[in-house]
Amino acid sequence: MKLPLGYRYAAAYAGIRKVEKDDIALIVPDKPAQGAAVFTTNIVQAAPVKLARQNLKISKGKVAGVLINAGNANCATRTGERVALVSCKALAKALKTRPEYIIPASTGVIGVELEATLLTAALPKLVEQLSAERFQAVAEAIMTTDTRVKTASEEVPFADGTVRVAGMTKGSGMIHPDMATTLGFVMTDAVASAEELAEILRPATERSFNSLSIDGDMSTNDTVLLLASGASNVRPSGKERKVLGEVVTWVMESLAEQIAADGEGAKKLVVVRAVGFKTREDARKIARAVANSPLVKTAIAGSDPNWGRILAAAGYAGVRFDPSVIDIEMQRTLVCRGGLGAPFDENELKGKLDEPEVRIRIVNKKGGKGEARFFTCDLTEGYIQINGSYRT
Amino acid sequence: MKLPLGYRYAAAYAGIRKVEKDDIALIVPDKPAQGAAVFTTNIVQAAPVKLARQNLKISKGKVAGVLINAGNANCATRTGERVALVSCKALAKALKTRPEYIIPASTGVIGVELEATLLTAALPKLVEQLSAERFQAVAEAIMTTDTRVKTASEEVPFADGTVRVAGMTKGSGMIHPDMATTLGFVMTDAVASAEELAEILRPATERSFNSLSIDGDMSTNDTVLLLASGASNVRPSGKERKVLGEVVTWVMESLAEQIAADGEGAKKLVVVRAVGFKTREDARKIARAVANSPLVKTAIAGSDPNWGRILAAAGYAGVRFDPSVIDIEMQRTLVCRGGLGAPFDENELKGKLDEPEVRIRIVNKKGGKGEARFFTCDLTEGYIQINGSYRT
Repeated sequence: MKLPLGYRYAAAYAGIRKVEKDDIALIVPDKPAQGAAVFTTNIVQAAPVKLARQNLKISKGKVAGVLINAGNANCATRTGERVALVSCKALAKALKTRPEYIIPASTGVIGVELEATLLTAALPKLVEQLSAERFQAVAEAIMTTDTRVKTASEEVPFADGTVRVAGMTKGSGMIHPDMATTLGFVMTDAVASAEELAEILRPATERSFNSLSIDGDMSTNDTVLLLASGASNVRPSGKERKVLGEVVTWVMESLAEQIAADGEGAKKLVVVRAVGFKTREDARKIARAVANSPLVKTAIAGSDPNWGRILAAAGYAGVRFDPSVIDIEMQRTLVCRGGLGAPFDENELKGKLDEPEVRIRIVNKKGGKGEARFFTCDLTEGYIQINGSYRT
Repeated sequence: MKLPLGYRYAAAYAGIRKVEKDDIALIVPDKPAQGAAVFTTNIVQAAPVKLARQNLKISKGKVAGVLINAGNANCATRTGERVALVSCKALAKALKTRPEYIIPASTGVIGVELEATLLTAALPKLVEQLSAERFQAVAEAIMTTDTRVKTASEEVPFADGTVRVAGMTKGSGMIHPDMATTLGFVMTDAVASAEELAEILRPATERSFNSLSIDGDMSTNDTVLLLASGASNVRPSGKERKVLGEVVTWVMESLAEQIAADGEGAKKLVVVRAVGFKTREDARKIARAVANSPLVKTAIAGSDPNWGRILAAAGYAGVRFDPSVIDIEMQRTLVCRGGLGAPFDENELKGKLDEPEVRIRIVNKKGGKGEARFFTCDLTEGYIQINGSYRT
């Protein structure tokens, strides 16, 4: 993986998690980077989300360090805001920068007090350890119930030289459109302003993290941050900026797919595509209703080509359509034609549904050009086991 | 159980289900009854739903028979409408009444052709068997993945005599606000017009079946029918009609609770109450978001007092509120005060959460008078096992 220039990383165990596994991490640009972020839209917002939003506003997008902890969401706690503030200040001091240039991000259990000293005590050693090579260590530190590290990267040759984009993220429950317990950090070494990054990040998020649903739950801590270190010294031209936006989107789509594939208890990645609806928004509602349906998701866990549930979920998506012009495909096999069952080889399709990636396509044959795609996963006993006693 | 006067019932095995268990049933008033119904709002509607709606319109609420089958939803099939029509005609003939006076209702798998002859062949014997005593047999016949029969009844002494109300329903997956694979049949022997019944049924449904969520999936076949045989010869006066409405609501609330308690794989009934919000609609959104949250429901399965998930679900309900004035109680234990963790005895509360009925209360201390209640159940491995291979 070719990493963007101009960043250093560090991760350590600060004693926040009960198990000894890295739970504090830093991403530090060599010089303050430009940054843009999107946050959860939940009314209940964790202290680090509020502070990160505020800091980005004050700093006008300047970011000198990202301070991440796992194991505690620092949300709905008495001391949360103070803890976020104190730890950002401590990192700013260690990095010899301003506290407003620090972006905090937390993930973990809600409603349990986070001890500031755990963070501040770990910082000096962490700053010492900063290294361009420790990207992977940070990606590992931010994992909670994730079973796999989630990273992605791309390179683009522009007229003035090559630019790199790399990202990391964590899943894997409480994931829902408009995001949820997702932390995502995407770094590039392109030269770009905070405004340019914000313009790239919005549509990229919509196509990736906001087109992803594990369980319909939206968290209090979601943060996706896009940073540009400028260390490549390449400033993409107008046209190239579009390409940069696409490349960032690819990286983020890959991260979103990896989250879905690693959904809590998931054995299969499910990609739901709705095609031929009046508007993109209509198609999104359909794809999302199908991706969110526990009945569809359990059927896929059981490799059961129960297309009736797909049609029924589309039917309650809140979109007007004529069921008699709907085709449904599972794994490219036509299972429903014009709202009615199509003849297919049940055993053959069951075999195909055993594959680790399941594709569902809902086609409106008489609609418009609106199409959308949603990532999700199957719903298995594992989800229940993971979530039945997360706190304890 | 004291049943309303003026109805006969029958149930038999017609070969629709793979297993030999009654799958066809009749409810027949001695004389055509008055009736009102509510149906699924899913865009994809089963043939019997369409025909029932049409028949009630033509007959102006007159109902001479209800023809129910389980094991096949008669939805999204080539021959569905013909099958529904033919079987209603056959029953009308056997009962010597008009086809428009028959209400069909089906539940089961979607997208599999239902053979009309299975129904019509079973009808003559079924009509012969009609008996006032076979109420329970019908309640059993309509079960699909239900593990328990669901019935409820009430008696009310009015000035002119006693009136009885009895209902039956089936669950237990694909249940969602605005109903889902629910068939509900509520009979009274009061004298009431179709309009009066419709006025009673709407609010009663909102407080019962539409305040119920098992998995967020809404079916194509939901039907709740309220019939009045008039056999008691008691016509409730204006004030008494309100009481009749309340009694019908109690019966339907009991049925809804029974569905939640028997949710697929459920071990616990969960009652979520939101209190002190601006409007009833706001409170409903909050209660529903919490009742729908897989993370809350798995936590309850594990007797984990994870109130942070409750607060987070309230936060994404789409209602503006100030988290710092929210209290949360689980089993009457205060777990969150003013948006922050309240001290409670974890082991004691875990013990209380092991009980078969779990009560969650979300209180807005600075809001209005809007309150609402939602029924749901915990989410267990059993749900997955039941739904992973329902079709096959």
